[in-house]
Amino acid sequence: MSGENQWQTAITEIAPNSICVRGYDVAELMDHTSFSDTIFLVLKGELPDPRQSEMFRAIMVSSVDHGVTPPSVLAARTVMSAGNSLNTAVAAGIMAIGDVHGGAIEQSARIMQETAKKEGDVSTLAQALVATMKEKNQRMPGYGHRLHTADPRTAKLFAIAEKNQFSGRHTSLAQAIEKAFGEIGGKPLPINVDGAIAAVTSDMGFDWRLGKAFFMLSRISGLIAHVYEEKTTQKPMRKLGDTNAAYVGPPRRSIK
Amino acid sequence: MSGENQWQTAITEIAPNSICVRGYDVAELMDHTSFSDTIFLVLKGELPDPRQSEMFRAIMVSSVDHGVTPPSVLAARTVMSAGNSLNTAVAAGIMAIGDVHGGAIEQSARIMQETAKKEGDVSTLAQALVATMKEKNQRMPGYGHRLHTADPRTAKLFAIAEKNQFSGRHTSLAQAIEKAFGEIGGKPLPINVDGAIAAVTSDMGFDWRLGKAFFMLSRISGLIAHVYEEKTTQKPMRKLGDTNAAYVGPPRRSIK
Amino acid sequence: MSGENQWQTAITEIAPNSICVRGYDVAELMDHTSFSDTIFLVLKGELPDPRQSEMFRAIMVSSVDHGVTPPSVLAARTVMSAGNSLNTAVAAGIMAIGDVHGGAIEQSARIMQETAKKEGDVSTLAQALVATMKEKNQRMPGYGHRLHTADPRTAKLFAIAEKNQFSGRHTSLAQAIEKAFGEIGGKPLPINVDGAIAAVTSDMGFDWRLGKAFFMLSRISGLIAHVYEEKTTQKPMRKLGDTNAAYVGPPRRSIK
Amino acid sequence: MSGENQWQTAITEIAPNSICVRGYDVAELMDHTSFSDTIFLVLKGELPDPRQSEMFRAIMVSSVDHGVTPPSVLAARTVMSAGNSLNTAVAAGIMAIGDVHGGAIEQSARIMQETAKKEGDVSTLAQALVATMKEKNQRMPGYGHRLHTADPRTAKLFAIAEKNQFSGRHTSLAQAIEKAFGEIGGKPLPINVDGAIAAVTSDMGFDWRLGKAFFMLSRISGLIAHVYEEKTTQKPMRKLGDTNAAYVGPPRRSIK
Repeated sequence: MSGENQWQTAITEIAPNSICVRGYDVAELMDHTSFSDTIFLVLKGELPDPRQSEMFRAIMVSSVDHGVTPPSVLAARTVMSAGNSLNTAVAAGIMAIGDVHGGAIEQSARIMQETAKKEGDVSTLAQALVATMKEKNQRMPGYGHRLHTADPRTAKLFAIAEKNQFSGRHTSLAQAIEKAFGEIGGKPLPINVDGAIAAVTSDMGFDWRLGKAFFMLSRISGLIAHVYEEKTTQKPMRKLGDTNAAYVGPPRRSIK
Repeated sequence: MSGENQWQTAITEIAPNSICVRGYDVAELMDHTSFSDTIFLVLKGELPDPRQSEMFRAIMVSSVDHGVTPPSVLAARTVMSAGNSLNTAVAAGIMAIGDVHGGAIEQSARIMQETAKKEGDVSTLAQALVATMKEKNQRMPGYGHRLHTADPRTAKLFAIAEKNQFSGRHTSLAQAIEKAFGEIGGKPLPINVDGAIAAVTSDMGFDWRLGKAFFMLSRISGLIAHVYEEKTTQKPMRKLGDTNAAYVGPPRRSIK
Repeated sequence: MSGENQWQTAITEIAPNSICVRGYDVAELMDHTSFSDTIFLVLKGELPDPRQSEMFRAIMVSSVDHGVTPPSVLAARTVMSAGNSLNTAVAAGIMAIGDVHGGAIEQSARIMQETAKKEGDVSTLAQALVATMKEKNQRMPGYGHRLHTADPRTAKLFAIAEKNQFSGRHTSLAQAIEKAFGEIGGKPLPINVDGAIAAVTSDMGFDWRLGKAFFMLSRISGLIAHVYEEKTTQKPMRKLGDTNAAYVGPPRRSIK
Repeated sequence: MSGENQWQTAITEIAPNSICVRGYDVAELMDHTSFSDTIFLVLKGELPDPRQSEMFRAIMVSSVDHGVTPPSVLAARTVMSAGNSLNTAVAAGIMAIGDVHGGAIEQSARIMQETAKKEGDVSTLAQALVATMKEKNQRMPGYGHRLHTADPRTAKLFAIAEKNQFSGRHTSLAQAIEKAFGEIGGKPLPINVDGAIAAVTSDMGFDWRLGKAFFMLSRISGLIAHVYEEKTTQKPMRKLGDTNAAYVGPPRRSIK
């Protein structure tokens, strides 16, 4: 069997009693390699150098959890509460990672990568971008947060990027966009953790199509902790508050 | 608002410009903590000691990928191939982690934990367990593999457990069960990686209800690599082989 | 290609320009057959007779929606609100149909089918079942409702079953169980809609393993209406109430 | 509790022992209303007139199943095969309904609705659309099929639409697009069932954002039948063919 019905893969080679991930024996990785380095290998095909290793580790650690209110946690705990398996509940949380939650990394990185490719200095490019967005009434993904005005994760990511020389054209552009929002937009719109991850991973050479990957890899630990907490500390079938619901449709009527 | 409609959590405390995971400032974790240590913290509530850290890292690394044939990868790539978002495709892979794929950790750990709690030496307990299973025609989850007779991940996990003194009552029991299968069962049934993770995490004090967690945390990196590979190297809507399908139902007929 | 790698199916035969469902040309079904009759055909392999048709239609209609508070709707709307596609949001709702929400049909039907198979009159069987459950402190799925003491769907389903002669041994048993709960249990525990569907579909000859199917088939219309309502009437990323969340974990601490 | 944290809905009003869907008592619907009419009510807010009823019934019947090869069935059966619950497996199938499988209805209807809104006769609009698509090397969703050159569902849907006077501007446009593909595109590109449903539901006044809804409502019955067939006729954990997989990545190597 061959051709288009065949599943080809360059990730892992399997043979009886042998498993090689991107060419490396899994047993050798189990002896020597950190988990974040191994993930980097799985995604990129090569083990990271020390600077990449340090940067990627920090990204993975940054987003493990953000409390109970994000949509991904609410979806996951709700599915668990209805009496389902751990994997089904966690999957529901993964599904909630959409364009406006976690998914902002993807769109933010796409815009940064497309913009950074253009000629010109980042300041000019950023001002043009923000002006266009203002005109079209568009939001720049990865900027602003409902709660944090100075997200502690953003500052730390940029500091580690700086130290490890990953503050390249995309990070500069990301900061120039923030500056442009303050000048043109009228009010400051600080980079959030999604925007920071988008900028740094772009400088590390990751395709924007992997944007949601970094968030999923990190947050799945939080999702698991939440559904386990739900299972072990709460009664099944949360009563999610009839007082929180209101019917606003047509009044009672009859078919004829 | 309080009481049963409230979402209580002991995982992460959120305040404006502050995120504390299990009490630790996320920025401090980003500076100092490995990704696998951070995951351990999220799940367990405390940072691991060096022995726990080493053991947990090896578990996380062990299961990152196993090629293209496992159900989780097939489900994930199929959903991606039909034109969906990265998170939806990955979620489909997570959903496929069921009782007979990855999920064996959960049931294997449950049986080991319930058995190890009983009085008696592990050899006697293992023989009784295997005899009962043989009688009831039950399968012991975490034993046997369709491809590997000596899974390289199993040997490595047990070696690292030995070195870090995590070979306790559950690991001994697991090995006694393997021995009993050879003696009573008639044919050898080697522990697979699921069974090894079940034994070691039981000796580390993890609740069996978290069994699927270890597999999900590790394998999500492989799932992401696979759906990205599908997206970037394959045409949409794989033709999954009409030649591989056969209709075996009633012949054509008319309503009346 | 053949054997165990082949996908065999008895549901639909596909050939160029020809689609036959359980043997019937889909174009003929499109001309003549109601949607609920077609679903019956897909599930059972045969078109329903008029009594089965009437009963199955009523079951399908019974559970289309139950407002915004059930877990399935909350999960689905939350996933939609985070910026996802219609199918991903609906799938999250389907995933929330677990053991304690909709899924009760499955377990209720299993118990009814296993009990009804035993010898003896339903009243004696019901009393033995309720006594055992009381002793083991188990809940009978399909009985009791957090809101309805006399669920209007239950009464109507039993009336239509009566009229169409589907009130057989399982329905009698279901009603005897309700009676036994009042006598032995001390307080009345009325059959809810899940229990009623479990009883009636058991009398219609459906396998209890299909229990969740009836609920999913009916409720998916409600789930779609809800996610569409969320998309078209609400702002993205619902703020799900920081006031509704409370942190109850360890206070702030430092790594060393 | 009120305001933005409240869940408002116009679909169903719930009170103790009372359930009103779009204003109608559910018990009254259970007595009098067909399942497809009830779904129409849930989605649209009003019961259909006889012409709408007939058209919508045919749409619902048209897509109940298409054999074992579509991605949604493969994803669903694979998840079931790995040892999961009925609802989780069905959800995986729903998730596979993406842009190139079933989801074509959504994009096809969007283009038809945006084009039909413009001034001019459908023939001119269709030719401009096809010319633009050809120039930009875009595919028109809802046209062409890997197997059917004359999809029996398409012809039947258009015939029932004609009979019930739902062949309006969108249907004419859809047919003009097919004609334009033959003339400008060089080779015929017949409307498929997705395109036909897109055209007819557009003429019925449905928002294109509901495009995937019609397919999900219909196909969920097929998905359920497939996962039940998988569960009851196949061994767990399908061996999906190691012969169908090929490793094409780097050869074995060592870390240092």
